[in-house]
Amino acid sequence: MTPMFPVLDMPQRLLMGAGPCNVHPRVLRAMACDVIGQMDPEMTGCMDETAELYRQVFRTKNHHTLLIDGSARAAIEAALVSLITPGMNVVVLRIGRFGLLLTEIVTRCGGVVCAVDVPWGEVVPPDRVRDAIVEHRPELLVCVHGDTSTTTAQPLAEIGAVCREHNVLFYVDATATLGGMPFETDAWGIDVATAGLQKCLGGPPGSAPITMSERAVAQIMARRHDEAGIRNPDAPQGAGPVIRSNYFDLAMLINYWSPERINHHTEATSMLYAAREAALIAVEEGMDARWARHARASRAMVAGLLAMDLSVYGDDATRMANVTGVVVPEGCDPIRVRTLMRTEFEIEIVSSFGPLAGKIWRIGAMGVNATKPKVLQTLGAFEAVLAGEGVAVTRGAAVDAARAAWGAE
Amino acid sequence: MTPMFPVLDMPQRLLMGAGPCNVHPRVLRAMACDVIGQMDPEMTGCMDETAELYRQVFRTKNHHTLLIDGSARAAIEAALVSLITPGMNVVVLRIGRFGLLLTEIVTRCGGVVCAVDVPWGEVVPPDRVRDAIVEHRPELLVCVHGDTSTTTAQPLAEIGAVCREHNVLFYVDATATLGGMPFETDAWGIDVATAGLQKCLGGPPGSAPITMSERAVAQIMARRHDEAGIRNPDAPQGAGPVIRSNYFDLAMLINYWSPERINHHTEATSMLYAAREAALIAVEEGMDARWARHARASRAMVAGLLAMDLSVYGDDATRMANVTGVVVPEGCDPIRVRTLMRTEFEIEIVSSFGPLAGKIWRIGAMGVNATKPKVLQTLGAFEAVLAGEGVAVTRGAAVDAARAAWGAE
Repeated sequence: MTPMFPVLDMPQRLLMGAGPCNVHPRVLRAMACDVIGQMDPEMTGCMDETAELYRQVFRTKNHHTLLIDGSARAAIEAALVSLITPGMNVVVLRIGRFGLLLTEIVTRCGGVVCAVDVPWGEVVPPDRVRDAIVEHRPELLVCVHGDTSTTTAQPLAEIGAVCREHNVLFYVDATATLGGMPFETDAWGIDVATAGLQKCLGGPPGSAPITMSERAVAQIMARRHDEAGIRNPDAPQGAGPVIRSNYFDLAMLINYWSPERINHHTEATSMLYAAREAALIAVEEGMDARWARHARASRAMVAGLLAMDLSVYGDDATRMANVTGVVVPEGCDPIRVRTLMRTEFEIEIVSSFGPLAGKIWRIGAMGVNATKPKVLQTLGAFEAVLAGEGVAVTRGAAVDAARAAWGAE
Repeated sequence: MTPMFPVLDMPQRLLMGAGPCNVHPRVLRAMACDVIGQMDPEMTGCMDETAELYRQVFRTKNHHTLLIDGSARAAIEAALVSLITPGMNVVVLRIGRFGLLLTEIVTRCGGVVCAVDVPWGEVVPPDRVRDAIVEHRPELLVCVHGDTSTTTAQPLAEIGAVCREHNVLFYVDATATLGGMPFETDAWGIDVATAGLQKCLGGPPGSAPITMSERAVAQIMARRHDEAGIRNPDAPQGAGPVIRSNYFDLAMLINYWSPERINHHTEATSMLYAAREAALIAVEEGMDARWARHARASRAMVAGLLAMDLSVYGDDATRMANVTGVVVPEGCDPIRVRTLMRTEFEIEIVSSFGPLAGKIWRIGAMGVNATKPKVLQTLGAFEAVLAGEGVAVTRGAAVDAARAAWGAE
């Protein structure tokens, strides 16, 4: 018997976890635009505009800025499979779970991982980066900017210079920070950066922006091997080894996004519209203003949590501005608290991974949720739930402290 | 200076090409639902419902039926990279461009391609399949069901039995036919089939359904290697070689879609909603009724084209029911005709690839466009454009013939 399938009716939940977060209403509306053909002039025009918007979001002049049709990790894999040739030494900075994900992907692409580890909650100092490069002579160095598993952001400003000095390509996974914390692709000497829409950019998961420097593109295009069936016999092919993936072949994707427009996959039209709208909203707000808004939301959130006598995880100097870790108080059931937040208040907060699983909650304030009302609502609910669970909290203190910390508009 | 970015304002074009086609309005609305957290019970419930809907669309009892977050070719790559181990012999049936795409992906996954070629427009007879299996002793046989480049559909009903007889896994790319032509995963003995939303399912590109038989799953799970950072130390890992991709690792995706729910990528929530709604619409219509509607639209389209004294490409017995090839008449400029269709009538028709580039137009009628009004509008416009270009056509004949061929409702 055919089961019944009800009309889609998703709850209007406030997503204050580590992402995805709530989508800007303009982005939801953008996805309702009519789909058009993938080589139509309006479509290619939309792709070109989207590339220009993401240049501004990434703070780069990189011509080769485009979208990968998949989640944030799809763009990570596209970058790594296109940059790595089997046997290549790759230095991986690991400050949390997403550093382990980079390890995983580098290994599957055939790279040899040279790991630089720090305890969770800490970041890698520049001299350790230099030492690792000198020791391992890598062709590529990869790291995560903000690792949400530890709510910590790796400082990047000094690493790019070290990489250039040693002729090492520098890849950064900016999934959790792009649009929410200062990120300077060109000024920091980053060769390839990738992200997703579902965190500080206020879009849905499923489209992943990427930007590539000229020196990265030169290396990628040396591996250009257009697929049979659409190859132009006059187009020069690369001498380098074939990229191991077709879907993630950045040489073909660069071509698809260029005036040459050799057909590749069918661009995810509705997600393109979402990505364009999310970037347009960010550019209209201004990247500096957007970063400042996230920082302000973070300060207010931290002030509120401290006013409840809770401990905030990590180091003030390297804490992400968009996800805050809160240490679970002694005797408190962390899963029960999360469930009550969801069922009684329709607010999502999340746990963490590995050594921090069950030890901290993570409360995010990203994109449309990095605002005063969302922070205050979350703190009010959190206080009520913790009080109900027997945690000694001064009622009203968190919201008052956060309002004061937010300051005058 | 910051360039100006206008509000998204896409034309309401009638997409009668080879896909993407127009999206059902219910699917566009479904994407506007609020995003929720990826482990929330409403989210996992939505994933389970979507799996059940695609079982009905694929006509299968396969438990392991899920979505790949990417375009149709993302699902092809997920299937092939998870099934192929480097050095494996893979028989590839090639009836057009998309057979060449399979070759490309098999090769990049490390497989050894054993190609069975036929001239474009023809299909591979079952005895050649058997001969190829006997000759090459492959572990996997792959083919495209409907290759839109030639508007031809490979008959599949007899191939599955041959594969099982020789213990060969059978993969089919059903991107262009699922929901528009009879497709019987279980009855035809298909082990893995993949598709996209943007053709006969009437959704946007960017989400790709896949279904897997138990014997395919056994082979995939023998290669289970959960990523470090989220691996449960008690979970049994496979003895087989690690799958070369993380994003497309079907062992991890099967887990993510199962009650074990080990976290993988962030599911593309809005595209999940689109995929669910598209399948729900198909299941509500009934697969048999939907196939019959596409066949009827095809008959009407062909009748109209023949009434204009045009030649229809390919063989009546193996012609796809959703895309029709029309031979470009002598002396006619095929690009000019396509441009006039778009600019004067807001209707997209497309060219083809390789040996058929510039030789045929392809006119599709898929999903919401496989209806009488869309077929009649297209034929009326096509007649007017061809007449204006000096092709001798009897005015009014195409629409009248198509109306007659459609028959009474």
